[in-house]
Amino acid sequence: MPTYLPLDDPNDPRIAAYRDVREKDLVGREGRFIAEGETVLRVLAGQDRHRPLSVLIAAKRRDKLEPILSTLPDAVPVYLADQAVVDAVAGFPLHRGILALAERAPEPAADALLAGLQGRPALVMVLVGIANHDNMGGLFRNAAAFGADAVLLDPTCCDPLYRKAIRVSVGGVLRVPFARLEEGEDLVGLLDRRRLTSVALSPAGETPLHRLEPIPRAALLLGAEGPGLPEGLMARCRTVSIPMAAGFDSLNVAVTGGLALHHLRTAG
Amino acid sequence: MPTYLPLDDPNDPRIAAYRDVREKDLVGREGRFIAEGETVLRVLAGQDRHRPLSVLIAAKRRDKLEPILSTLPDAVPVYLADQAVVDAVAGFPLHRGILALAERAPEPAADALLAGLQGRPALVMVLVGIANHDNMGGLFRNAAAFGADAVLLDPTCCDPLYRKAIRVSVGGVLRVPFARLEEGEDLVGLLDRRRLTSVALSPAGETPLHRLEPIPRAALLLGAEGPGLPEGLMARCRTVSIPMAAGFDSLNVAVTGGLALHHLRTAG
Repeated sequence: MPTYLPLDDPNDPRIAAYRDVREKDLVGREGRFIAEGETVLRVLAGQDRHRPLSVLIAAKRRDKLEPILSTLPDAVPVYLADQAVVDAVAGFPLHRGILALAERAPEPAADALLAGLQGRPALVMVLVGIANHDNMGGLFRNAAAFGADAVLLDPTCCDPLYRKAIRVSVGGVLRVPFARLEEGEDLVGLLDRRRLTSVALSPAGETPLHRLEPIPRAALLLGAEGPGLPEGLMARCRTVSIPMAAGFDSLNVAVTGGLALHHLRTAG
Repeated sequence: MPTYLPLDDPNDPRIAAYRDVREKDLVGREGRFIAEGETVLRVLAGQDRHRPLSVLIAAKRRDKLEPILSTLPDAVPVYLADQAVVDAVAGFPLHRGILALAERAPEPAADALLAGLQGRPALVMVLVGIANHDNMGGLFRNAAAFGADAVLLDPTCCDPLYRKAIRVSVGGVLRVPFARLEEGEDLVGLLDRRRLTSVALSPAGETPLHRLEPIPRAALLLGAEGPGLPEGLMARCRTVSIPMAAGFDSLNVAVTGGLALHHLRTAG
């Protein structure tokens, strides 16, 4: 059981980390992140990589959240405040009235993350240049839904533990382990060495997705909408396309990822 | 060729419809809508249901947009203003500097829309209770990308021609014809009469999507995330599920729609 503590001052130093949550995202959080809402709180409480530090909820939510809160470690304080206090802390009306602060797990090196997937079927999502937090969140939501084993990020991707990405992912970013490639690290070389088949999604891909055969150990490469994946990268991969209507060949990257993950999970 | 007109006063009555675009969406537009950005402008210019009334762009964009603007009817005025004037009109910094005003086409009755699809293969998307403009836009983007012939909306769905839905759809809402069901209209009865097979997506669906056989004339029913489709409706449909990872059975409705549309387009 966590420790319930009443709170009535929005300036209480114990909840300073929650203050003005929107602005804080822009300047970094020193290894901590904010989770919002019941679903994300449930995912946070149900995983053990990232460490919950505290929870701030509107007191009226306590009963409904009890089944989740009761699974938190004893030492975690749960601050109970009036909705108006929660809103004052957050800096905007926080209708769902649920915030949690957690310490992010140390990120493994990309190679170490893949090493943990050796000798068995694996599905890895590799993101290149995904700078939009909505898309990042949507991609992780799909990775979690289709049971991807890991996500790799190139150095230009945004942070999956940004508040909005966590929310859009419905907690998926807390479930699927991820690692960031070093500047200049050879992505396809790494995937080859770890015996993963690199599959690049591209409108110019040679194989239509629905014809792609089962791939027991696949790394699915996705680039940002617009620029897509670099040519040099695609030249070293199987390339796969998604057939679309003439004159409207435009899919959201998270949808593209969902289609490919679903196919690889169900093919064969 | 359209008519180019310089504009330097944000309060010029000729562009009153563009003023404070964010707030105007909330109070209705009397049969008109606002399209934003180059891609949506291209879709608007390339279709003939909705009638473009005028365009407002940052003057510096004129050369790049010329190929699109030149396809607009002669009578359509294109107002050219400084970026600062465009921002002042819109009421916020409009980085892409492109707005268009159009008159929405009269909406056909649902039955009349389906009547136009008789005697040939057809793929119709049917939305029930989709109240979120992001999801509405995402669903239409996928409907356009996979060449759905029509979209039906139940009376509780939001307006696809809301500015944000248009933007998220990347113009898809302007490409795919849609109709709204009347209050109390019998949806499945209508689909049956028009010889469309009703396929309802649901986590409890009996057939996994990837096992669904080709359906030459399909109506794909999608409900809002959370409540899903009403039981009474599903009892009268083929029901289809999307297999997901244990403990994280959560997909965005636009992704669900994309998966199902893609499957129906490529199956068989």
